[in-house]
Amino acid sequence: MSKQDKNTLRLIFPQWQGGDNPPYYLGSRLLAWLAPPAHGPVEEVPVDAPSGAPLPLENNMHGRSVLVKQAKAARSIIERHQPQSIAVLGGDCLVSLSPFAWLSEHYGDKLGILWIDTHPDVQTPEQYKNAHAHVLGALMGHGDPDLTHEVKKPVKADKVMIAGIHDPLPYETQFIAEHGIRTCSPQEVRNGAQPVMQWLSESNIEVLAIHLDLDVLDPHNFRSLLFAKPGRGKHDFGDVAEGKLNIADVLKLVGEVSTEKQVVGLTIAEHMPWDALHLQEMLKQLPLLGG
Amino acid sequence: MSKQDKNTLRLIFPQWQGGDNPPYYLGSRLLAWLAPPAHGPVEEVPVDAPSGAPLPLENNMHGRSVLVKQAKAARSIIERHQPQSIAVLGGDCLVSLSPFAWLSEHYGDKLGILWIDTHPDVQTPEQYKNAHAHVLGALMGHGDPDLTHEVKKPVKADKVMIAGIHDPLPYETQFIAEHGIRTCSPQEVRNGAQPVMQWLSESNIEVLAIHLDLDVLDPHNFRSLLFAKPGRGKHDFGDVAEGKLNIADVLKLVGEVSTEKQVVGLTIAEHMPWDALHLQEMLKQLPLLGG
Repeated sequence: MSKQDKNTLRLIFPQWQGGDNPPYYLGSRLLAWLAPPAHGPVEEVPVDAPSGAPLPLENNMHGRSVLVKQAKAARSIIERHQPQSIAVLGGDCLVSLSPFAWLSEHYGDKLGILWIDTHPDVQTPEQYKNAHAHVLGALMGHGDPDLTHEVKKPVKADKVMIAGIHDPLPYETQFIAEHGIRTCSPQEVRNGAQPVMQWLSESNIEVLAIHLDLDVLDPHNFRSLLFAKPGRGKHDFGDVAEGKLNIADVLKLVGEVSTEKQVVGLTIAEHMPWDALHLQEMLKQLPLLGG
Repeated sequence: MSKQDKNTLRLIFPQWQGGDNPPYYLGSRLLAWLAPPAHGPVEEVPVDAPSGAPLPLENNMHGRSVLVKQAKAARSIIERHQPQSIAVLGGDCLVSLSPFAWLSEHYGDKLGILWIDTHPDVQTPEQYKNAHAHVLGALMGHGDPDLTHEVKKPVKADKVMIAGIHDPLPYETQFIAEHGIRTCSPQEVRNGAQPVMQWLSESNIEVLAIHLDLDVLDPHNFRSLLFAKPGRGKHDFGDVAEGKLNIADVLKLVGEVSTEKQVVGLTIAEHMPWDALHLQEMLKQLPLLGG
């Protein structure tokens, strides 16, 4: 049933440096506030609140040293708890690195990763300087050594499925093809996610880690996303793919896979609550509330 | 300077029954979570969380008896604290009833009310059955006796100004004209709110209560509003006026009036955080988080 219990570690991980985008910090805290009460331990990975100072570009990756430090801090918290399962409330997509790496060590080849995302997150610093787009590649053992070093047992390509993806970039398309990673388009998800169910039945997977990048959602209907930035221009985000699913589609997919396999990992990532952020700033400046 | 101090009572008032719209409950709680720390007492007016049951229509007003009960509960909290100033985190617009009525008794004719809102909120049950559209009328002593009974010293029309209003309904237009209430259009607000500054200098006002209905904001840029309901149809809200200002416009207006007069009351109302609401429901249904 994949219910939470006392062996489920809930990790609040307000990492924003992986996307070089400060609002992910509030996004993580707000998810934690909205989530139902935990039945097991709750820990917050120490992350400095955004100060307004730009992140340094270190050897082709924004915030490299702080990201490595946060990955190790998350690892250390997980090792202390030795949980059976982990729920992560991010933060940018990189928050899955240490938790999913640990689950891979713990469950070995029994573990599958279902990556629900518009983007495959398999780039490297050569293609893109923000590590939140590198994390699935790193979990498979590919890409920047500072990230792959945190993955002691890389996950094999046949244990990975990406759902909700469309229109990948050329490098991503090539990576997916070379490694034979299975994918499921938004339309296929809406039609019952048959490719996902087939993967689950063919791949000797016993337990699942699910990464949910909220960017998989249609920004017209769910607006707490990078792509729903108020006042944005059509081409402000380099014409990369934008989400096409709705929350009901995602819940249906997750519901179906979790009746088939036990879920031992779940990440919610890339929550960017524009309105909450702007309200927070507004309240600080209003009489009788700020000051 | 209108800074908060230990004599400022912060009232969290998650009333949703005045708009017959359950998400105002979460909206109030979320505002309270986002607000800077209080320097004075913080109280929450007891409001039943939405249960899904429809509100009864009682003598032409949805939820009449519970609304009266909540107004009296707010009054009783305020009387216990005898604050110099009150900040209210609503909830629907009716949350201003008891706090502003109390300020009117406390400050008498020195008090002015600046109502920052797309709508004048001067209707009665005869025109509209949800009391959040009746509140400014009631504060002036007009409308339903159950509401005006809570207003011991009605505020005179020359002490009232509505800013951000446009395209009022026929009844509202007539009420505004009959009482000679001054108004300031969204365009005038953006141009420096000269009519508001003139009112402040002409009306022997010494202290101000400001009601900020977030509906005054443009729902394309701030989406945690009734009018920004995901998937809404163009005519879903009866073609009533929708907001045209941005947060920066509101902050500029409030900043200008609060350099002229001391602010002793501030309400934030009608926060409807669709994304947070949908996330909250989603998290309940996800493995390792819900259940």
